[in-house]
Amino acid sequence: MGRWEPNARGRLEQAALALYSERGFEQTTAAQIAARAGLTERTFFRHYADKREVLFGGAHALEEAFVDALAGAPDTAAPIDAMASTLEAVASFFLERHEFARQRQAVIMANAELRERELIKLASLSSALAATLRRRGVKDSVAALTAEVGIAVFKVGFERWVEDDGQRTLADFLRESLGELTVVATGD
Amino acid sequence: MGRWEPNARGRLEQAALALYSERGFEQTTAAQIAARAGLTERTFFRHYADKREVLFGGAHALEEAFVDALAGAPDTAAPIDAMASTLEAVASFFLERHEFARQRQAVIMANAELRERELIKLASLSSALAATLRRRGVKDSVAALTAEVGIAVFKVGFERWVEDDGQRTLADFLRESLGELTVVATGD
Repeated sequence: MGRWEPNARGRLEQAALALYSERGFEQTTAAQIAARAGLTERTFFRHYADKREVLFGGAHALEEAFVDALAGAPDTAAPIDAMASTLEAVASFFLERHEFARQRQAVIMANAELRERELIKLASLSSALAATLRRRGVKDSVAALTAEVGIAVFKVGFERWVEDDGQRTLADFLRESLGELTVVATGD
Repeated sequence: MGRWEPNARGRLEQAALALYSERGFEQTTAAQIAARAGLTERTFFRHYADKREVLFGGAHALEEAFVDALAGAPDTAAPIDAMASTLEAVASFFLERHEFARQRQAVIMANAELRERELIKLASLSSALAATLRRRGVKDSVAALTAEVGIAVFKVGFERWVEDDGQRTLADFLRESLGELTVVATGD
């Protein structure tokens, strides 16, 4: 095999998720993932630092997408409206990714260490959003609360999307979840 | 010294927090905590399983207080109103505990492992609240969202209370934070 492997990253990702689902995250090695993908272990490590990165390699790009969208919302937008357009923008990140997200979620929920990692990812996202809101001139407590609430809406909407059959987009679920937030918060 | 030590638990807690603050959580041993409190290591382990439990030993009772208050809210209360009375009830848990909470928060924020533990505690709390809301007949997505939002209000209000001088109660800050939620969610 030559050095260039068409879509090696995608093949490794698919192989990793299949193995994590079949035998558990703990029990899977990088060598097994590479073998399943018909690639070498060396190729695996060219694409991923370790087997956990297959699941969390997108976290940085996701945070960037969140922060960029929030920072780019119109200056006059209320914090929650800026958050709404941010969620809308971020949802496009997950187009064509329903099957990946579904498998990934199942693997994460089955492993305490991965669940913790996911919580840390979301907490970091929330801090980044709060900092971005403060830079937009939103006062501390409102910035922190809007960020936490934005992540809550994202989390709940995301979980419902993942459990769904994939016909509706993540954006649909995030919009629904945001609508429910208004109902919840006003006690209607 | 006899087996009975007046207020051993409180003295150990104070000694532990002083040492964690002075030299860091990692660098402190159970023996040092006991010595600072003028007690034996054996007494330490009669009260706490390990040095982390000094910081997280209250988590179970806190979750119970949350769940009991939420389950006990009037059947007719909207989810957010049930959450409001829950926060009110839980705040009483922290009366006379401002100094402890302030020191504890500083120790936790300084240590990645403890921050993770705290995130896990809050996530577990959120799951327990969502389950309690579902038992009250609240539909899944609203239950999950109300629980997440309740924890967000608690977290933000708690952090502000801890940073404050301790003159105002936690209940004051939670009420304020809940009021801000309504403003945030309606975009006013």
